[in-house]
Amino acid sequence: MKLEQIETPAALIDIARMQKNIARMQGHMNTLNVTFRPHVKTTKCIDVVRAQIAAGARGITVSTLKEAEAFFAAGIGDILYAVSMAPSKLPRALALRRQGCDLKLVVDNPTAASAIAAFGDQHGETFEVWIEVDTDGHRSGITPEQDTLLEVGRILHENGVKVGGVMTHAGSSYELDTPEALAALAEQERAGCVRAAQRLREAGIACPAVSVGSTPTALAATQLEGVTEVRAGVYVLFDLVMHNVGVCTLDDIALSVLTTVIGHQADKGWAILDAGWMAMSRDRGTSRQSHDFGYGQPCLLNGTLLPGYVVSGANQEHGILSPTQAQAQAQADDITQRFPVGMKLRILPNHACATGAQFPEYHAVAPDGDSVEWRRFQGW
Amino acid sequence: MKLEQIETPAALIDIARMQKNIARMQGHMNTLNVTFRPHVKTTKCIDVVRAQIAAGARGITVSTLKEAEAFFAAGIGDILYAVSMAPSKLPRALALRRQGCDLKLVVDNPTAASAIAAFGDQHGETFEVWIEVDTDGHRSGITPEQDTLLEVGRILHENGVKVGGVMTHAGSSYELDTPEALAALAEQERAGCVRAAQRLREAGIACPAVSVGSTPTALAATQLEGVTEVRAGVYVLFDLVMHNVGVCTLDDIALSVLTTVIGHQADKGWAILDAGWMAMSRDRGTSRQSHDFGYGQPCLLNGTLLPGYVVSGANQEHGILSPTQAQAQAQADDITQRFPVGMKLRILPNHACATGAQFPEYHAVAPDGDSVEWRRFQGW
Repeated sequence: MKLEQIETPAALIDIARMQKNIARMQGHMNTLNVTFRPHVKTTKCIDVVRAQIAAGARGITVSTLKEAEAFFAAGIGDILYAVSMAPSKLPRALALRRQGCDLKLVVDNPTAASAIAAFGDQHGETFEVWIEVDTDGHRSGITPEQDTLLEVGRILHENGVKVGGVMTHAGSSYELDTPEALAALAEQERAGCVRAAQRLREAGIACPAVSVGSTPTALAATQLEGVTEVRAGVYVLFDLVMHNVGVCTLDDIALSVLTTVIGHQADKGWAILDAGWMAMSRDRGTSRQSHDFGYGQPCLLNGTLLPGYVVSGANQEHGILSPTQAQAQAQADDITQRFPVGMKLRILPNHACATGAQFPEYHAVAPDGDSVEWRRFQGW
Repeated sequence: MKLEQIETPAALIDIARMQKNIARMQGHMNTLNVTFRPHVKTTKCIDVVRAQIAAGARGITVSTLKEAEAFFAAGIGDILYAVSMAPSKLPRALALRRQGCDLKLVVDNPTAASAIAAFGDQHGETFEVWIEVDTDGHRSGITPEQDTLLEVGRILHENGVKVGGVMTHAGSSYELDTPEALAALAEQERAGCVRAAQRLREAGIACPAVSVGSTPTALAATQLEGVTEVRAGVYVLFDLVMHNVGVCTLDDIALSVLTTVIGHQADKGWAILDAGWMAMSRDRGTSRQSHDFGYGQPCLLNGTLLPGYVVSGANQEHGILSPTQAQAQAQADDITQRFPVGMKLRILPNHACATGAQFPEYHAVAPDGDSVEWRRFQGW
């Protein structure tokens, strides 16, 4: 199907940009001499993940057991489930391992570690568990010097569970916006995770994997001594938040929402779009950054940026496109001529993970304008 | 399946609360002597809509043609597609009408009106179109006194399109929070829409339907003279935004997200949940209201509210539950005992339409704790 024929709203992936993003990250990882395990939560789409693996990725990271089940069914065996394990989910994890999936679990507390050990013992299964390390205080994990680190390591190690490694995610990198700050956090993430592995090893617990990453720290890292692998997700498509963080240009953003102008409020300088928050998502990540892009940055159908305009508001199925400055009266007066009913536009989103999740499929667009449908899934 | 067995995160509907909400709205409409056409965009779920129709609803309102197709396939014929028509979507509308669907379209501008007339002429189809009226300046529509109203009416009427009525949505009601302001806006919505119908009729254009509504104005209206029907959506489940608007209590909220505690950051007084923004949605509607509920209000598994706690932060698959006040050190110290790993909670959401859209299904829970799965769909 040609781009012009796709019904709106629709989530478009620019294949050339996506491939460039994949090559950039994989090339950087190759240079740093680490393997790369993409986080597939961004797209939940086998077509995208196949491109990441074709470029050199080794295994995948998932955020839900549904992702693990779907990607294992599609032939991917090496899977890290990177959310601390809820004991009630162990039967699903066991089922995956019994089918031959090399599923690795994550814990950051003694209760979950004990539950995995007990469940594994009960079912005769040797689970592999990675311990989550907190290197920036933004979410989960055990800080490298905490006693709990060794406590959890011992509960696993002494009760028939394989300690496969340590992992950390310096997600506070999303709040930074200078190369220096990103490089410093990348080093903090590396050093903290390596230190946690060292402590476990000194306690007699093998810890083969040392896994770090977020898109900004992965791209900012200049040396990863002691690290075995890196994880990142949103780099594959990028978005306006990542642009503000400073790790991509607007021209790198591979995801956009195709929309149609369906009306105007000429007095207010508004064009009404058929992409509201149900299409863009409610993610307004750039509202806390240096450049607030509202609900998204408008572009022409061919991808040309439209500086001076923004999606300034959204209802469920209505977006409001308007000039970025209230005083831009000339642009406001011109709104019905510049954006007539029926005109199609593309909107760059705040957050690729959130926007993608609003759609059952992507339309992957080749440079010649031909598109194919790539399914994605939702749920847990 | 019993409530205790449902895997987390999951979207729960409390059936008794939902039925109470449905009965309340339908009863109010009956008293006001108007028919009620629920907006099914909130749930996109045939099981919910069947309950609305069983209670007395006449026809439905949809926000996408996919909803129209799905609900028509499920046996509902009287459908208002309440978003101004994009000309490129006319073939799908035609296909529905050719199958016997009594689909009504909406326009608020001459371009779309002309396109519908031309397309109908070309295909020998008499479309029915309702004209969208702007009664509160918050989004789309033509104000009652604008010349455009009659221009659009004439384009339709003189070119073989049936003008079926006028419709308006005073969505700015979501920004109010006193009974007086809501009642005043309800009257403004009524009067503006009735006036638009009067102008069309005086111009010789029949305008049988006069359709108004939003959940807050529908519940606040005390007389609806000249109105033939009311539309509302979120009332069926309610949410924290509607609580802050003042049209429901916390105990009326029928939607919650079931979640499991998966860890802690004890020093910070945080319990980590397996419901992040992917489950709760990124909707933070209460952040602009008198009471900010963060990403949601925690409750025990049995629905008992937990005042003094809030979901204060969210990553994609991690929620952060914490005391509402930083100085609540006793609560913070107590976090690991009060909310142990494995404990299940229910979280009331900011916005039922946005949270529901994150899930492929609801788990509808009866008073005895038994649940059934109600499918919902996404996309356009």
